[in-house]
Parts: sequence; structure tokens; C-alpha cells
Amino acid sequence: MKVIDSVKITQNACFDFRKKGLTVGFVPTMGALHEGHLSLIRQSIRDNDKTVVSIFVNPKQFGKNEDLSYYPRPINKDLYLCRKAGVDIVFSPCLKDMYAKDFRTKVSVEELGDSLCGEVRPGHFIGVATVVVKLFNIVGPDIAYFGQKDAQQAAVIKQLIKDLDFSVKLKVMPIVRENDGLALSSRNVYLNKQQRKDALILSQSLELAKGLVKNGTSSTKNIVGLIKKNINSVSSAKIDYVEIVQKDSLIPLKRVNNNAMLLLAVWIGKTRLIDNAILN
Amino acid sequence: MKVIDSVKITQNACFDFRKKGLTVGFVPTMGALHEGHLSLIRQSIRDNDKTVVSIFVNPKQFGKNEDLSYYPRPINKDLYLCRKAGVDIVFSPCLKDMYAKDFRTKVSVEELGDSLCGEVRPGHFIGVATVVVKLFNIVGPDIAYFGQKDAQQAAVIKQLIKDLDFSVKLKVMPIVRENDGLALSSRNVYLNKQQRKDALILSQSLELAKGLVKNGTSSTKNIVGLIKKNINSVSSAKIDYVEIVQKDSLIPLKRVNNNAMLLLAVWIGKTRLIDNAILN
Repeated sequence: MKVIDSVKITQNACFDFRKKGLTVGFVPTMGALHEGHLSLIRQSIRDNDKTVVSIFVNPKQFGKNEDLSYYPRPINKDLYLCRKAGVDIVFSPCLKDMYAKDFRTKVSVEELGDSLCGEVRPGHFIGVATVVVKLFNIVGPDIAYFGQKDAQQAAVIKQLIKDLDFSVKLKVMPIVRENDGLALSSRNVYLNKQQRKDALILSQSLELAKGLVKNGTSSTKNIVGLIKKNINSVSSAKIDYVEIVQKDSLIPLKRVNNNAMLLLAVWIGKTRLIDNAILN
Repeated sequence: MKVIDSVKITQNACFDFRKKGLTVGFVPTMGALHEGHLSLIRQSIRDNDKTVVSIFVNPKQFGKNEDLSYYPRPINKDLYLCRKAGVDIVFSPCLKDMYAKDFRTKVSVEELGDSLCGEVRPGHFIGVATVVVKLFNIVGPDIAYFGQKDAQQAAVIKQLIKDLDFSVKLKVMPIVRENDGLALSSRNVYLNKQQRKDALILSQSLELAKGLVKNGTSSTKNIVGLIKKNINSVSSAKIDYVEIVQKDSLIPLKRVNNNAMLLLAVWIGKTRLIDNAILN
């Protein structure tokens, strides 16, 4: 496994793969790898001749008062996990090589990036879209792997690939959960013992909503109302948003249909967690 | 020469070129080809195994009250010129294939795209940057050719290539002029006989400024003042802007240096013309 910190050297190495007719799978990450990331990496290794993983905590997708400075960066453990999984290249660039002093370009996906997480994290999806365009241009993958946990991110990237004519196939992989239901996230390490228990309210709420739909409730207003009540029963929980939207377009729905997706963002203490599920 | 209107087919054809190890040169145009465009096309044919020319009047780079509806579209003549020059593929997409109904993505190059032409044509360079990213992703060129006449556009594209890590080399080719000095432009066809004469005030002003610098004037304020006076002596001329800036960064200068560039935008009747020159 090669670990490369240079944009140019990674670009040339990936160019050589394609020149040889090898297919390239790409898993962009911010590191602090968990089983969710590893499920993407393993799928990429199954699908492609070569797999490239990027590890880059992208400052442009963090807001001013967010957790950029203390976001976990266990680089040695990450490299060990990548090596063990069979990754070919880990691209781990330094900040200056990604964003020169005179960096000026922004990629935005209107509407899709403005609601939900984009509303409480303004500029977040511009940061995501911009770095993903850069990474696609550096790696030139055949297939890129993203996690369903970041559902809005997946929708933004899907639109961006289509709009900008990237010849990249997108594979969005299912959410990986702890045995008790908590969706894996690099931010789960922030939770103390009590908060870790309280955090179950997210996945429990998804199950509750699925149950309501199964039993015939289709008014999204009613479902959201019950879910909010359920979350508010946990004292350490503070709701950021609870919304039922159309998958991909993220348009809010009045009635649950086959592609209705419940999206949650909830603060547990000082940790903001997200989760989602298709309801039908 | 192949004329292709489909994004996917063009993308596949260009992919096949690269797969065979052939180099691809790319000349993006809005058609109405003149000797300026042809100088880019000929350079591309000299430099590369294959040359792709796009002909697409991009609505996203026109303002509401601009000349989108009557911009010249002499497609048969354009195809004839491309064929005669030895172009391999003309990519001439229809609007729907470039911009689906749910198109949502914007690429912006901050600051560089906001001053000069960007100030009087808000959104213009977002339209340019967005379509160029699309075209680069469709064609995947080794070298892309742009004209120096659109100096600000060239600066925006240069920054975009660098910021977004496109592995595309940019070649900016010199302005081609009529014998009497008028810079070639597809918009010159709008000029009547008298306006055609009046339009010489642009290139004459550039020569005047060069002469002033040669004779020791270095205050850009003084030069701009004299140039404005000169242009205003022509009754059909209305100044849009006259500015002396640093090449590439487009930062306004107080004193002329080695990379000082004079940029002009002048209305001659209802036709907006631009021209520029390095002063030293």
C-alpha cells in the first residue's frame, strides 16, 4: 500500500492505473475510519482492480464554531485498517497542497445543499462539493463510494456527478450500525457513557416511524410530531431537524410514499448526530 | 470529421482516444468561428493527435438583456471551417443534453469573476466556469485552447484548472486582428459601416497607452484618464470600463509594471466590444 501526500503524485499514480486499463474505486473519507467506511472500502476492493482511499479532514466543510480542531485524526490506526483491508493507495494530502493561498473556486449544488444540514451548517455542502470535484479530478475513479448515513451528501454528490458530466459511477452503501442500533459515526467517540445510551433515541425514532407507516399512518406531519415528542423525552437530546423528504430530490413530503425518507439531526449534549431511513 | 450532438457519445469517443494513448486538444467555442478561433484550432492540431471543437451558445453565460437570441449561429459555415482545418470531432450539443430540467450545480471563481466584465455581466463567469467544467469532463483534454481576447475568461479558467486539480494544460493564444487593428470577434457582425470605423478606437487606445508607457508615463490613473478622453471623442462609443490590472490576478495597479494589462470594454452603438494588451 502506498501512502501519498502529494496531489500530483497521486494524480499520476491513478493516471497510470487507467493507462494500464485497470479500474479504480475511490472512497473519500475524513479518516477516523469505522466499520461504515470499511464496508465501502471492501465493496470497492470487490468491484475494482485498484482502490484509492483519501483521508483529509476538509476544513471548507466545517463551520466557524464546529469541531474542526478536535475532529479525531487517528492516522496510524486508519493506515493499519486500510492496509489490512487491501487498499492500494491512501491519499492523505496536507492542507496547503489542497488549498493554495489564492484558492478561489467554489462548487455549489443549489437547493439540495441549502435545506436540512445545509440550513444549520451554511456553506457545508459547498465545502463538500468543492473537495469532491477536486478529489474526482485527482483520482479519476470509475466508481466512488459514499455512505447512506450522510444521505443529503449522497444526494448532493449524485446531482453534481450528473450536472457536471463526471464519468464516475456513484455507489451509496447502507448505514452500518452497532448491535443496539446506533449508526456508526466518527463523532460517536465524543459521547460519554450516558450520552451513548441517549443517542439510541435516533435509531429508535426511525424504527418508531417505520412502525407508524406500517400501521397505516401516512401524514408526515403526524409522524414528525410523534418523532419530535419521542426525541424530546430524552433530556440530553436537542432536535436540529426532523424531516420526511423524497429520496434524491430531498423535496419535503406531505404523505409517505415509496421513496419517503426520514432524516434526523439531533444534538446529544455537544455532539451533533444524524441518521435516516426509508420509511416504506 | 465526426459531428456529435450527444454528451455521452462524445465522452465515449474521447475516452477511446485516451485509451489508445492519443493526446486530445480541445477548443471550446460558441461558434460563429473566425480567424481567432481558427488560430486556436490550428495550434491544437499541431500539438495533439486529435482535436475536438465544441460549438455551444451557452445560455448560462448570457445576462437577461443580452444578445443570446440573436447571437450568430452559422453552423454550416462553422462545420465547413472545422472540416477544412482538420478537426476530428465537433461536439455540438443541444440545450437539454447540457442542462437537464433539474440542473442545479454552479462553479464560481470568486473575485476573478466579479470585477471588470463580471461587474457589468453578473453571473457571466459562473456560466463560463460551469460549462467549462462540464466540457472538460466530457472531452477530458490534454490541452485546452482559449483566446487572449477574453483575458478575464482566460484568468478565470486558469484559476479554475489550478483550484480544481484538472489535469488539463491551458494554452492562451494571442489576439488575432483585422489589418486595421480591430480585434476579431463574433460580435463584429453587429457593426454597421460607420460603427466598424468607430470600433477602431479600442485598438487605437491600446496603442496610445503603449506609447504613453514607452515615453515614461507609469501612473495608471493618468493613462486611464487619457484613454477615456480618447474613447469619448468618438460619439457612438460609450465606455463600460477602462482598467489597468495585473495579468492573471486582475488586481488593479497604481503603477505600470511588466505584467500590467490594459482592459477595455466599450459599447459601439448596441454592440459591446472588448480588447486588451500588455502595456510593457
